[in-house]
This record gives sequence, structure tokens and C-alpha cells, in this order.
Amino acid sequence: MDTCWIVEARLTNAPTPADRIAALRAHTARLGLAGVLVPRADAFLGEYVPPSAERLAWLTGFTGSAGLALVLRDRAYLFVDGRYTTQAGREADPALWTLRHVTDQPPSDLLRAEPPGTRIGYDPWLHTEAAIERLAGSGAELVPLDANPVDAVWTDRPAAPAGPAVGHPLSFAGVDSAAKREAAAAGLRKAGEDAAVLADPHSVAWLLNIRGGDLFHTPLALAQAVLGADGAVELFLDPARADAALRAHLGNAVTLRAPAELAEALDALKGRKVRLDPDVTPAWFARRLREAGATVVPGEDPCRMPRACKNAVEQQGARAAHARDAVALARFLSWFAAVPRDGLTEMGAAARLLALRGAGQHFVAESFPAIAGAGEHGAIVHYRATAATDRAINPDEVFLLDSGAQYRDGTTDVTRTLWTGPGEAPREIRERYTRVLQGHLALAATRFPEGVAGPHLDAIARRPLWLAGLDYDHGTGHGIGSFLSVHEGPAGISRAAKPVALKPGMILSDEPGFYEPGAYGIRIENLLLVQQAAMQPGQTRPFLEFEVLTLAPYDRALIEVALLTPAERAQVDAYHARVLAEVGPALDGPARAWLAAACAPL
Amino acid sequence: MDTCWIVEARLTNAPTPADRIAALRAHTARLGLAGVLVPRADAFLGEYVPPSAERLAWLTGFTGSAGLALVLRDRAYLFVDGRYTTQAGREADPALWTLRHVTDQPPSDLLRAEPPGTRIGYDPWLHTEAAIERLAGSGAELVPLDANPVDAVWTDRPAAPAGPAVGHPLSFAGVDSAAKREAAAAGLRKAGEDAAVLADPHSVAWLLNIRGGDLFHTPLALAQAVLGADGAVELFLDPARADAALRAHLGNAVTLRAPAELAEALDALKGRKVRLDPDVTPAWFARRLREAGATVVPGEDPCRMPRACKNAVEQQGARAAHARDAVALARFLSWFAAVPRDGLTEMGAAARLLALRGAGQHFVAESFPAIAGAGEHGAIVHYRATAATDRAINPDEVFLLDSGAQYRDGTTDVTRTLWTGPGEAPREIRERYTRVLQGHLALAATRFPEGVAGPHLDAIARRPLWLAGLDYDHGTGHGIGSFLSVHEGPAGISRAAKPVALKPGMILSDEPGFYEPGAYGIRIENLLLVQQAAMQPGQTRPFLEFEVLTLAPYDRALIEVALLTPAERAQVDAYHARVLAEVGPALDGPARAWLAAACAPL
Repeated sequence: MDTCWIVEARLTNAPTPADRIAALRAHTARLGLAGVLVPRADAFLGEYVPPSAERLAWLTGFTGSAGLALVLRDRAYLFVDGRYTTQAGREADPALWTLRHVTDQPPSDLLRAEPPGTRIGYDPWLHTEAAIERLAGSGAELVPLDANPVDAVWTDRPAAPAGPAVGHPLSFAGVDSAAKREAAAAGLRKAGEDAAVLADPHSVAWLLNIRGGDLFHTPLALAQAVLGADGAVELFLDPARADAALRAHLGNAVTLRAPAELAEALDALKGRKVRLDPDVTPAWFARRLREAGATVVPGEDPCRMPRACKNAVEQQGARAAHARDAVALARFLSWFAAVPRDGLTEMGAAARLLALRGAGQHFVAESFPAIAGAGEHGAIVHYRATAATDRAINPDEVFLLDSGAQYRDGTTDVTRTLWTGPGEAPREIRERYTRVLQGHLALAATRFPEGVAGPHLDAIARRPLWLAGLDYDHGTGHGIGSFLSVHEGPAGISRAAKPVALKPGMILSDEPGFYEPGAYGIRIENLLLVQQAAMQPGQTRPFLEFEVLTLAPYDRALIEVALLTPAERAQVDAYHARVLAEVGPALDGPARAWLAAACAPL
Repeated sequence: MDTCWIVEARLTNAPTPADRIAALRAHTARLGLAGVLVPRADAFLGEYVPPSAERLAWLTGFTGSAGLALVLRDRAYLFVDGRYTTQAGREADPALWTLRHVTDQPPSDLLRAEPPGTRIGYDPWLHTEAAIERLAGSGAELVPLDANPVDAVWTDRPAAPAGPAVGHPLSFAGVDSAAKREAAAAGLRKAGEDAAVLADPHSVAWLLNIRGGDLFHTPLALAQAVLGADGAVELFLDPARADAALRAHLGNAVTLRAPAELAEALDALKGRKVRLDPDVTPAWFARRLREAGATVVPGEDPCRMPRACKNAVEQQGARAAHARDAVALARFLSWFAAVPRDGLTEMGAAARLLALRGAGQHFVAESFPAIAGAGEHGAIVHYRATAATDRAINPDEVFLLDSGAQYRDGTTDVTRTLWTGPGEAPREIRERYTRVLQGHLALAATRFPEGVAGPHLDAIARRPLWLAGLDYDHGTGHGIGSFLSVHEGPAGISRAAKPVALKPGMILSDEPGFYEPGAYGIRIENLLLVQQAAMQPGQTRPFLEFEVLTLAPYDRALIEVALLTPAERAQVDAYHARVLAEVGPALDGPARAWLAAACAPL
């Protein structure tokens, strides 16, 4: 029957969800397996994947950014985290998929209930070794597959990205690739290592100063590389994607090779010590290196920390990009304040902001799909308005707008929460907004000695909410790349983040919030650039502080001024004065007048 | 020559420091070793050791609470941490000992410079396995010794503690030993383990509700135990130290065995799974268990967490002990405020406070040697006044007094910083005191959801200092036992502490400070009891908060009231009103009048 079905499926253009899972089961059975794993991941293990790698969405219908399917002979499970339980329940057919919370009822628990040695197939390009080892601890036999099992049955799979990779000019990158490669190679030599696998395309992009258009929101060419201790690089990217200008940009020390040659390149590392970052590297690499007779040394991706610490040119670019973004945002906010509340929808508002940003110099794309949540939609932290969910933005409600852009000189990410008026915001909402604002201000104003990490600062942004017994279920801040990913490690301001000491040049978000399910959401987000602080009287060692990059007024209709301390009030007034001074001159007429009013002292 | 010297040394009562090191070297040579390690530790790996285990002090003269000597044939090194570099330089003869900072120039670096395989002896009772493994990573061969090498040459070594162990009555302990043993045993059964080694005498004391007088400041009988999954305990304590009352208190499920029988008892665990906490267990145990054919399972001491979370009776005891301590402290402070500044010394002040505490019910001892630091001595975080350093407390200076007591119903630890007058304190000192106070108040007033750990809260106490570029070089808070150690894990409020979620019943100190070397020290310390917080409007999940246990006024001469926010000022006023209401009635005449003035609204 299964075989018949496959024949049939190939004759139609739109296999049903039941068709898809049946095809995968038939393939799994042919491989002699009891089941297969289908993660929401590609070989680059990033947050975003191209359409050609949306295997989990194709199979299950679930379109969230993290999830894992386990398809057994007679049952199929979809594991998602707390952000996505509602969405997954809506998107995946409950007749086909049993939904599981990935930490409360992890896949290993399910596998433990199977007979020991149950054979589960997985694609070693789509999982880290640690993830596979955790599953193998359940007693199941995890079987690495030579080819992805979904691809074998996904008949209308989109083509993989094939557009050109391009050079990222020195005027934006700040440091040329040769200097970066030499510094990274020196680190390998110091550690006595012969080479490092760069499995993360963000690191490849940073090291070689290249970008691409493989993803909607992150300007990457999805490529991997091997860096030698002599500073030479083998770059695994379809040579058809590199034109003469790119080849010239890469220079002689970078060898362009087809991705299919990666295995052969690793085999050539026989007898060598090869660093590999287990957090960002598919299991395939370590396995192949060991088979080749290389010594795998687990260690941090040598580009991860220098990439996080933006150089002076990148910092200047971030300021310029934020100034440009601020003009678009001020134009949007002044327009939004005046537009009649008679039919404008969430998607309409997001499209307007995107159009305003798109007029800015160096604009490339949104840095993530904008979160435009009116009323109860604002309480869904990862809400994305679609044709099915889009709704009008009504009078007298809360509208949360979290958006950002990729400019060639910097990446932005900003959230403002607005009261749509014309009535006064209820006191409860004003009080909660003000507590969120107090935490946001306290974090931004914090100075701290070297050695302090994000997890140590998270509580500073939460304390005003905590005092009222309130909190938010997400981190306070994430790292941001320089014309790279809007979510970048290794530092984050969150209790769950690794305690990586903050360093000058890192850019982090400051985005506390409060969510009243079914009613409204509040979030306020600026990006902060870590800087050396000026020495003060009596100070004996260096401190760090934050430079606020984002320039947009807070909605005074939501601020309960009486709750602010004089210092907090002064901080808001000084910030607003800076916004007006830096953004105002780029605006004309009504927008400028609106900004002046929005930035008047509280 | 070495042998001759030993003969000679035995004829004198007071071997010189050079004699001691020479004797140890001769013994080391006889053992066929290139060197030996001498840590400041006994087999119980606690912060305090009895005089019989002060081997490092005997050998080197250094009396600090942490350190390690490495004695090689021709050189000898003393490793200490930043707290003790000054003191070690003063106490250890530089002609004999090369001083090293233990993290900047660790012993492993030194050993790495020796030929590979250099044989270094160590006593496996005095080091954790992890500590030995770190050293072995240097390439040296670490050789476990059957007998301690210092004991072999320490001719006038004091006797080990031999006083009686006593029962800790249920009226203080709150839960009887049988119930504690059953709960701990149930945890072992659930984990599929057959037994647990209890190497930490604090856990033995807690589990069996026993105490003793083996140490000056911690009411311990230094004993170890093995807990079976059936709840039975083998207690390794010299039977001569247990009288009939104690044996009756212990009951039939606790078998008393001589410490010398421990090896035999571990041998009997052949084939069993035995839990052992690697953080608190000497290397000897795991080695012996493996040789016996047992399976060693690393895991947390099963008493550690329940011991930290005080039960309702222990919490009530803590309140009573603190109320009693507060009366002694108020009497001291009122006396100190009025006593003429004409000769009172640091030691005199500490002795007066000790005498006042000693009059209190259930008083047993100081919980640590009081830190009474006038002027520049206050800037030495671990200062202890001795006959050699004691100095007069002068007019118009800062006096830091950090002290505590062991009462049978609870352990106290409190620091107040005082201005000795009669003049006004300089503005700089008042400002810094006020910043320390603001951090201390902010931490105490913080509410937080379950799951938050000490390292996440540390910055809250530092932020007011950080804003001025100032900081302090110690943790903000440590755990405190219930008539046990004044320093108790596993939770601590410090970036260096493990992120152990705070739980109701834990007692932690809140003690930010500021130190101006050579001039003065400021520290303000209260003990905080973690409690469930009352639910507030809109709150959806449980929060925790702190109950302040310590009751003593802050010195208003040092508070710069204008720097406080209205909320901070109200917090001080409310606390002072509580101090007056709870402590005042126990005072008479002048002390009561002094307290009323000290507790008046700011």
C-alpha cells in the first residue's frame, strides 16, 4: 500500500499531511528503521533556514523556528518548546501528530519506553553530537543516515539557495580578512592546534568578509570552512556562486571548493589536531574527522568572540544604521499617532514601517519578521501576523511593535509599545508599562566592572516587575550581529545564558516586557553597545557601561510619571532630548512637530 | 645531616621554622619523593580545623583559613588567595617560603616546569579527587601516602578533639533523625543507589541531630558516616565520645563504629552503588570504594539541600536567636556610643560584645572570630585583631564590627559600621556608606520568582556602588547553618557561586561593602530568611521574598539622607521602627533611650 501511495503521490502536486507522513514511514521501513528524527534545522544549525530546508514544516505543517518530529511506525510526535505549543497545536493535524513539550516530556523519555536497541535514523548534518548522545542515553540505537530521509520523499522540494555570495567591503567590515585570519590562526597555533572547522556560516561570513542572500532576514551565504593554523582557508561554497569580484576579494589564501568536497578535505586532516565547536557543529564533522584519523579538540569557534566584539568601524556603522532606522521609525510613529483607527491592520502597520525603512540608505531587509501585535496578540511573545490572524488595530488598546532591519552597516532591532487612544490608558496598563520601563532604564544605566556577564544583570531589568509579583517569560537581552544575525551569541542577558563576561564592542538588546494573556503585551527594546566607562573619582579599576544605540521616544501616554524616581525621570528626559536632537533634523513638518512633542520633558 | 637534625629537634621543645621544613624534607626523601603537598585542611575538608590539624600553620607560620604548601627538595612554595597575600608575607619566613598567588601562579604551573613523572606525595584524606586530578594534569606523578607526612615529624602535635558528642534536641532541630534518615534514604532508593558516603560532618550533625565542641566556632563533632538506602547509618566516631544519653538519642538504626573501621566498612560495599559528593569528599573515599569493587556515583550530598532549607522550628529558633543577639548588640552599641574614646581598643570592643552575648540564653560561642577593624584595619576584609595588631579606636574614624554567635537555637552573623565621632563624618565616607546601604536595602527588598539563584541577585546589591565606579572584592552573601557553620552551602549570593535556586527556609547574608585601603572599611550585614511571598494582584505564580532576621540600627551619622529615594528612606524607617518595637522592651534606661534615638525616623 505504501508503495502504491508513493506512486500516487508523485502524480499529484499537493500531497496531504497524511500522504507525507505515510511516504516518510515507507521510506523509514525500507531503511530497516523503527523511526526517524526530523528537526527544524539545516546543516548550518542556525535559527533561520532556507525554504529548501523547511523539512519539519513540510512534514508537519508547523512553521515555528524550533521543533523536532519523531516519526515511529504507528505514532508520530512533534516536540516544541513553550513559545510554540499553541501554534503547533493549530498548525499540525492532531489526528497525525501527538504534541509534546520538549522539556517536560522530552523525546528521550519516549524512546526509553521503546524496546532497547530500537533503531532510530537521523541525519548527522542536522544535529550536534551532544544532542544525539542525549537521545542515545535512552537506550535506543541512533543510526546516522547517508541521506536525509525527508528529502527522499519530498517531491516538490524547493531548490537550495544558489544566488551569488558578495564581498562585505572594508568600509563596513572595518578589519580585512587577512588580519582576521591571521589573528584566528595565531590562536590555533597558541593552542597547539592545526586547524579549526568553521561550521557556522556567521563565522565564515565574518572571517572572510562575505555576505549573501540565502535567508530572508540574515545576509548570509550558507557556507562552511576549514581554517588552517597558517591562516589559509578552504571555503566550501558552490564555485558557481562566486564571481570574479568575489574571488578577487577572497584572495589567494582562500581556496574555493564545492561543498561535496568537504568529506575529502576532512580526510586530508589525518593525524592533525582539529578544533571544532561542539555547540555549533553538526555531528557529521566530528565523526568524519575521527574516521579520518584526526584528533578532534572541542573548543570555541575562534571567530565567535571577535565577531561579537564589534570593531570601531562596525560600531560607527551601528550608530549610523540606528540613526537611519530612527528616522524611519519616527516617521512611522508620527504617522501612526495621527492615522484614523478605521481599518489599519497589524500587517498594514508593519508594511508601512518596512516601506519607510526601505527608503533608507544601505537597507537590505527586515532583520526578522516584524511582530505587530494589537491587543491580545501582543501577549503572544513570538506573534507573527498572517493573513489568517491579521486584525484591525482598534482605538484604546495596546499595540506592540517589535521590528528591525538589516543595513549594510548594521543590524537593528527595536520594540515600542503604543497606546492607540484617543482615550486615556487604564491605570493598570500604565503602571505595568512603567515598571517595564523602569527595568529597561535601570539596565541601560548600569555600570559594571569587567568580568560581569549577562546572567548577572538580568535581574536588574526584572526587579521593578518582581516587586509587584510580575515577570516575563523570556530573556532580557540577546546579542546582535553587525549586518549578520539579529540573534548572536555567545553573550546574552538571561539567567539561562552562559556566563560570558561582557566585553567592549558587544551589542545586546535590553527588552523587558509584561504579558497579560488574552488582553495585551508590553515590551520596550533598545540595543545597547558595551563601552569602557570613563573613570570616576576613587575608581581603581576599569568599568564598562552601555551606549544606547536605539533612538525612538517611549509612549508618554503609557508612562505613569508619578511612579518614576527623579533619577528615572531625568534619564527619560535626557534620552528624549537626545532623540530629538539626533533624529529631529532629518524630519520635516508634521513628523518633526510630533517628535518634539513626544520628546518634551515628562 | 638531616637525620642528625631530627635527633636534635626531638631534644628541643620549639623547633624553628627552618627545623620543621628540614624535618619534612628528610621524611620526604626517605619516602622516595621529590616533594609533598601540605594543604590547610583536615579529613573533614571544612573551613575550620582543630589545632591537631593546623599542619600548614605549624609548618609555615601562616594562619589563614585557606592555603597550600608545596615542599620540594630545594625550594618550598606557599600558595594563598588574594585575601591572604599580605598576611602570608608577614607570617611565613620569606627566606624559607616563596609566596605564590594560587590562581595567578597555580601549583600546577610549577609542577609543569619539573621533569615529567616527578613524584609528589599527598595525603588522600586532605584533598578532593578533583583537586588531585588538576595537579596530576601537570605531568607530575601524584603519590597518595598512607600516613600524613607532617604528622611524621610534628613532634609536639596537639591531641585530636576527644570531647563528647551530644544530642541536638528536637525542640531546636525540629525534625527527628529517623524522619530525616528516611527522607534521605528514599532519595537514594529513587536514584537506584545503595548507600551514600557522608564525608561532611555538618551533614552528619544535621542528619543525626548531634553536635559537639571539636572546633572553636562551629558546634561540630567531627565525624563521618555511611547512610544506607534502608535509612540505617554507620557513624564513625570514637565510641569513647558517645555516652549513654547520646547512644539512646541515636537509637538502634545508627551503629557507632571507630573511625579506624571506615576502610573495612567501605570494603563491605563491594558490588553496591554508592553516592559520594565530589565537592566535599576526600579522594581517599572514592579510591577505597573502587578498590573494594563498589560503583562510585558522583552526586550531591543528600543532606546538603534539606540542611540548607530550615524547617519551621529552626526558622523560629533563628528568629529567637536573632532577637537575643539584637539585645546584646543594642547594649553594646549604646555603650559604645557613650564610652570615652580614650583607650578602648578593637579587642576590647570585641570582648565587650562577646561578654554581652555570653549572658544570653542558649549562647555557646562566637560563630567566627570577630572582625573589629578601626580606621585602616576596616579595609582588611578578613582582619582579625591580635595582640600584635590591636589598636585604639580613635575619635572621628570609621569602626567596622563584624561578629556573630552560636546559640543552640540559631547562628547569627551581623556587621555594623560606626562613625566614632564626635565630629561629623566626611561627606565622601557618608556617600559611600549610603551607596553600600542602598545596595543592602535593595537586595533585602527584592522579591523574585522561584528558580532565581544567588548569582542572579548579586548585582542588585552592587549597583548603587557600580554607578559610582566602586565595588567590593567579596561575595554579597553566604548561607548560614542552624547552630552549625556560619558559612554553609550550597546557595550563595555571589557571581562565583553555583546557580543554586533559592528555596524557602534558606538563610543568607546580605553584606555589601566598600574598602578604601589604608583608610577605612564599610560593610553592612543582615541575615535574610527566604520565604514564600504573599500573592499580589495580577500575580500568576509563586514568588519568594526575604524576611530580615537581624535587628540593629544603621548608624545615622553615616547616612546621607539626601541620597536616598523616598522608598529607601521609608524602608530604613520601617526597619528601625521594627528594631525599636522588638528590641526596645528588653532594654532598660539609657540603652532604651539610645535605641529610641537611633531608630527615630531619618
